[in-house]
Amino acid sequence: MAVHLTKRAQRFAHIDHSPLNIEAMRFALFGAGRAGTIHARNIASHPRAEIGYIFDVDQAAAERLADARGGQVPRSPQEIWEADDVDAVLIASSTDTHVDLLRQAMRAGKPTYCEKPVDLDIKKVRTFVDEASASDPPVFIGFRRRFQPEFSSMQRQVREGAVGQIESIRIIARDFALAPLAFLQRSGGLLRDKMIHYFDLAPWLAAERPTELYATGSCLIDPIVGEMGDVDTAVAILRFPSGALCTIENGRRAAYGFDDRVEVFGAEGMLQGGSAPSENLVQFTATGITQGRYPDYYGEESFAYALDAFITALESGGAVAPSLQDGYQAQLIAEAAIESMRSNQPVQLQWR
Amino acid sequence: MAVHLTKRAQRFAHIDHSPLNIEAMRFALFGAGRAGTIHARNIASHPRAEIGYIFDVDQAAAERLADARGGQVPRSPQEIWEADDVDAVLIASSTDTHVDLLRQAMRAGKPTYCEKPVDLDIKKVRTFVDEASASDPPVFIGFRRRFQPEFSSMQRQVREGAVGQIESIRIIARDFALAPLAFLQRSGGLLRDKMIHYFDLAPWLAAERPTELYATGSCLIDPIVGEMGDVDTAVAILRFPSGALCTIENGRRAAYGFDDRVEVFGAEGMLQGGSAPSENLVQFTATGITQGRYPDYYGEESFAYALDAFITALESGGAVAPSLQDGYQAQLIAEAAIESMRSNQPVQLQWR
Amino acid sequence: MAVHLTKRAQRFAHIDHSPLNIEAMRFALFGAGRAGTIHARNIASHPRAEIGYIFDVDQAAAERLADARGGQVPRSPQEIWEADDVDAVLIASSTDTHVDLLRQAMRAGKPTYCEKPVDLDIKKVRTFVDEASASDPPVFIGFRRRFQPEFSSMQRQVREGAVGQIESIRIIARDFALAPLAFLQRSGGLLRDKMIHYFDLAPWLAAERPTELYATGSCLIDPIVGEMGDVDTAVAILRFPSGALCTIENGRRAAYGFDDRVEVFGAEGMLQGGSAPSENLVQFTATGITQGRYPDYYGEESFAYALDAFITALESGGAVAPSLQDGYQAQLIAEAAIESMRSNQPVQLQWR
Amino acid sequence: MAVHLTKRAQRFAHIDHSPLNIEAMRFALFGAGRAGTIHARNIASHPRAEIGYIFDVDQAAAERLADARGGQVPRSPQEIWEADDVDAVLIASSTDTHVDLLRQAMRAGKPTYCEKPVDLDIKKVRTFVDEASASDPPVFIGFRRRFQPEFSSMQRQVREGAVGQIESIRIIARDFALAPLAFLQRSGGLLRDKMIHYFDLAPWLAAERPTELYATGSCLIDPIVGEMGDVDTAVAILRFPSGALCTIENGRRAAYGFDDRVEVFGAEGMLQGGSAPSENLVQFTATGITQGRYPDYYGEESFAYALDAFITALESGGAVAPSLQDGYQAQLIAEAAIESMRSNQPVQLQWR
Repeated sequence: MAVHLTKRAQRFAHIDHSPLNIEAMRFALFGAGRAGTIHARNIASHPRAEIGYIFDVDQAAAERLADARGGQVPRSPQEIWEADDVDAVLIASSTDTHVDLLRQAMRAGKPTYCEKPVDLDIKKVRTFVDEASASDPPVFIGFRRRFQPEFSSMQRQVREGAVGQIESIRIIARDFALAPLAFLQRSGGLLRDKMIHYFDLAPWLAAERPTELYATGSCLIDPIVGEMGDVDTAVAILRFPSGALCTIENGRRAAYGFDDRVEVFGAEGMLQGGSAPSENLVQFTATGITQGRYPDYYGEESFAYALDAFITALESGGAVAPSLQDGYQAQLIAEAAIESMRSNQPVQLQWR
Repeated sequence: MAVHLTKRAQRFAHIDHSPLNIEAMRFALFGAGRAGTIHARNIASHPRAEIGYIFDVDQAAAERLADARGGQVPRSPQEIWEADDVDAVLIASSTDTHVDLLRQAMRAGKPTYCEKPVDLDIKKVRTFVDEASASDPPVFIGFRRRFQPEFSSMQRQVREGAVGQIESIRIIARDFALAPLAFLQRSGGLLRDKMIHYFDLAPWLAAERPTELYATGSCLIDPIVGEMGDVDTAVAILRFPSGALCTIENGRRAAYGFDDRVEVFGAEGMLQGGSAPSENLVQFTATGITQGRYPDYYGEESFAYALDAFITALESGGAVAPSLQDGYQAQLIAEAAIESMRSNQPVQLQWR
Repeated sequence: MAVHLTKRAQRFAHIDHSPLNIEAMRFALFGAGRAGTIHARNIASHPRAEIGYIFDVDQAAAERLADARGGQVPRSPQEIWEADDVDAVLIASSTDTHVDLLRQAMRAGKPTYCEKPVDLDIKKVRTFVDEASASDPPVFIGFRRRFQPEFSSMQRQVREGAVGQIESIRIIARDFALAPLAFLQRSGGLLRDKMIHYFDLAPWLAAERPTELYATGSCLIDPIVGEMGDVDTAVAILRFPSGALCTIENGRRAAYGFDDRVEVFGAEGMLQGGSAPSENLVQFTATGITQGRYPDYYGEESFAYALDAFITALESGGAVAPSLQDGYQAQLIAEAAIESMRSNQPVQLQWR
Repeated sequence: MAVHLTKRAQRFAHIDHSPLNIEAMRFALFGAGRAGTIHARNIASHPRAEIGYIFDVDQAAAERLADARGGQVPRSPQEIWEADDVDAVLIASSTDTHVDLLRQAMRAGKPTYCEKPVDLDIKKVRTFVDEASASDPPVFIGFRRRFQPEFSSMQRQVREGAVGQIESIRIIARDFALAPLAFLQRSGGLLRDKMIHYFDLAPWLAAERPTELYATGSCLIDPIVGEMGDVDTAVAILRFPSGALCTIENGRRAAYGFDDRVEVFGAEGMLQGGSAPSENLVQFTATGITQGRYPDYYGEESFAYALDAFITALESGGAVAPSLQDGYQAQLIAEAAIESMRSNQPVQLQWR
């Protein structure tokens, strides 16, 4: 079997210089599907974490994953909530189960990493956010773009003044291929499913919350997306209180691989980062100078970096971010964008 | 709670789709120093390998490493040779121990991964090569540049005809910083220690063995290198039977990080690859457009790729490469280069 | 000794393999200001053109330019309209004189190159367009972005199918420095003065006319721009009948030089082009890998390419583009964008 | 006729902001062949120069060129030497005429720009150099690589300390296609004709003269080159007194265009520059990310920059460089390289 590691994967290895006798943080993992499998691997690989339990409604799937990555497979979630050897919870089950599991985790006093979105129904999210109290254990929402190395470096440099006062943010993000219809149907649509990542990323980069946005879209890749009432190509413009403008374009397919690029422009310059060929290998021929296309998956290592950020924040007792509030905020922006696209009008956003 | 020892590192994530019930290849590891520590991590992380034993003359070092990565610490190598649960040997101990360990591994019938060089004394290498018989278990010499993704892709593309008939190879390789004197003193010198990697790489890319070379060098970085009788900057020109020429330049320090770049030029074009900034993040300011320097370490992941190549070759029963013969060949070229530098004359190379 | 007036500038060197006995096209040039000076140089340098007359209300300026580049300085425009040795007219005088001069040139039967915009008052433009008849000599409007080599190659490749069906266009254009206030005041504003270039470029790339747009802007660079009632940073989204979306962002200042970049994305790929450092010279240091910033002026050579396109079209009797109709179209889009920005509503565009 | 200007050509236009009433420097041009035609265009285009006379043994060629670029065509060179309206001489006739013309120009007291090489016979060059006296008018030898913008910037930055103390120079230069045999036969061979450019460039960058070199070569592109006793691919290593090493590789053909790249490495970093695609236009597709190949001609604008340097030096009364001494030096290095290649031995160089 050939090895095809990206350079990126290599970098995570450096995390692994921690003292070897640290007490591992023991996770209960909900969900043994695609995201759950990645999280299971990352927990098992993390030098200061391990899997205690894996639950999935498909018990066989949970068992296969536990065989590979460790952990027990309880008959019901209840066993997990009653267990005294669970340090943290990771929710990677289907979106409609998130709020219930979050509620139970809060009751059980467990710090929780929850995949985005909290729920497709913003009302359910609001209800849960309203219930939350300052004494709750921390909740981390898995907006992992923040942990993509280019973007975390970018945000840090922006904070350090690398571009001066921000005037513009430009974001382009395109999947490499149209996802399966089954996925698209339950995704909540392009804005709730994909653009929401950038509704989290942009305010985080800008250190402001948008007060107005306009969004528009088209169905260009496959008419079946339109038949679902969704778009596969969309642009949103966000306006921030400072006057800075942010343009986000999202699409469901790019022939040349996963395209995820951000530019932050300010009075003193610009930072530009994102997708790149996985190898620095260039071919010169009579017809041109060619390097490899973008990889189909960009930022898969961000799952691992996000997990590490969660673990490190819990260990240090510091603030967990992206927080539940951040997750709610991104979803509010997504709902506003959907409303703007529906009405073809700019929509105002008010923040308490 | 102990750190979960059987977990798999992130680095192998992308290949970790193997059936989960494969019998792991059990390694005896010699050496718990820098290279040994990397190999231990990689063996423990490999989905189809595990550590059985770790031996080091510094028993405490071996024990610390075994605590972290698994395996027992025998009192003597003899326990390893007598053990019936060792599938393969990895020699990462000091260079002067390589030949003896290789000899014992051959006697014990164990396939062996041996760090380069086989020995600093080419005569000892020749004696061991002469002893080798076709029935010996395979020996893999750790010339890991071949497994650096850019270079393995480059070699494959060259074989597929991407540049046509090869006419020229240009190699530049510079360490990011002068190594500690203690290391330099026992390294065998710039040509035996560092350029040897490219004396392996170049013939492998060219699919030919050089028949002539000229080498010259200078001491420019630190006079103490000259006092050792060594150079810190050197250039060699290799001539191949086809008439193709290869230029290799090596240095012991580059202010901008580890510089390791190769160009293969042929009748139909050129392939160019190697070092690159670790992130695709670019800053635009009034004074220029800047991206990150090269990382200090380039190609550390090639340890993992080389290990995987060794394991995969053993599993498939295919040829192991770089072989002992390849290792001997690279050392012969290095000796010729040293002779050329000493005499300031081109040196002919004859191959049986 | 006078400067040799008929000599040909370096800039046309590469096309200067034309037969040397071709009859030069004789231009009457209106305007000896910044644009006029560039055009005078380019006419004098063009291998198949020469300057017959230069008129400017500042007669001394006209005379200085004629000394340098050739041509007579008439006392009034009337002399030009009555002259029988004028082959073509180039209008580079102040914008408020364009329509009158165009009208006279049409009456005199002279093919005319007119700097953009036709007039700041769209009604005056409409009146002139309505007057135009099929028998008029050709009018070329100086939207020279089309002739910037990257963009002319891009358009040709798009037409040849390089990206498949177009789905998105992204344009960013930022001046290197805020223009003088005097210029800004009479410019007509960011959308009429600068974004109009891209209101011409985008439909030309898309081969469609937009049917809807939304524009918004901010004053971020200098409050004085806001006091004029203008913005210095603006974003517009254009929707085309095919569903393709185009985002144009414009700004009045970039610390790193003139930033002018276009991406055309389609079902089969993307073309990306525009600003680049003027030299391929890269510095590697301990702090990063740096190349030169963007030049302050981008695309000044497009003046020469546009002139050549005009001359070549006249010689061949082919269609002149960008035509008067193209110029009117871009101004209509600009007016719609201004209306959108004013009302903060999307605006529909209807085309006959 | 389409215009295909490179960005580079554009930059020369900026020279053209000189005061317009300057007395033009009047040239007598010898040679109306390929180089002469380029020089004629550049003289005619230069704002402070003009062509007085053009002489060629092919009088019709001289007349065609004079028709296009100005100047009279004398019946014999003698008319030129006797004329009182010649400010400077430019020798671009066949190599075997250079020394005689230089001698006459010196006698006539005319500053002279002479194409490289001075003569293919180093003895004739030495004789002429020995004749030269301090009171002679300046002689400029057309080593125009120094005026290629990337290389002139590189040299300036090196002098300003951009890389610290120089330790290594790496030069690669490959023509885009094998020149016609007739040219190759009278060229003096790869080292005298092409590598000589870098035998001038390298010492100029290093600010040192080499004291030793080794050169080797192959005939790989076309056997007919070998039949001429020449090579089409060659590598030379130069050693400087400081210990710095310079590797120069030259070839007669590159599938991807003219390849001309230089790296200067020092204690504090590296400068890298040279060939680049002519447009910043990149295509992203399913098979890769592609930009244009290198242009077939690199550095043609360096003719114009070299001419401007000559004119400017004469105007200011400053030193002319590359001087006759520089030209002789480069030829001595080339002869040493030929001797090294012949004997397959390193050759020492001694400088007075």
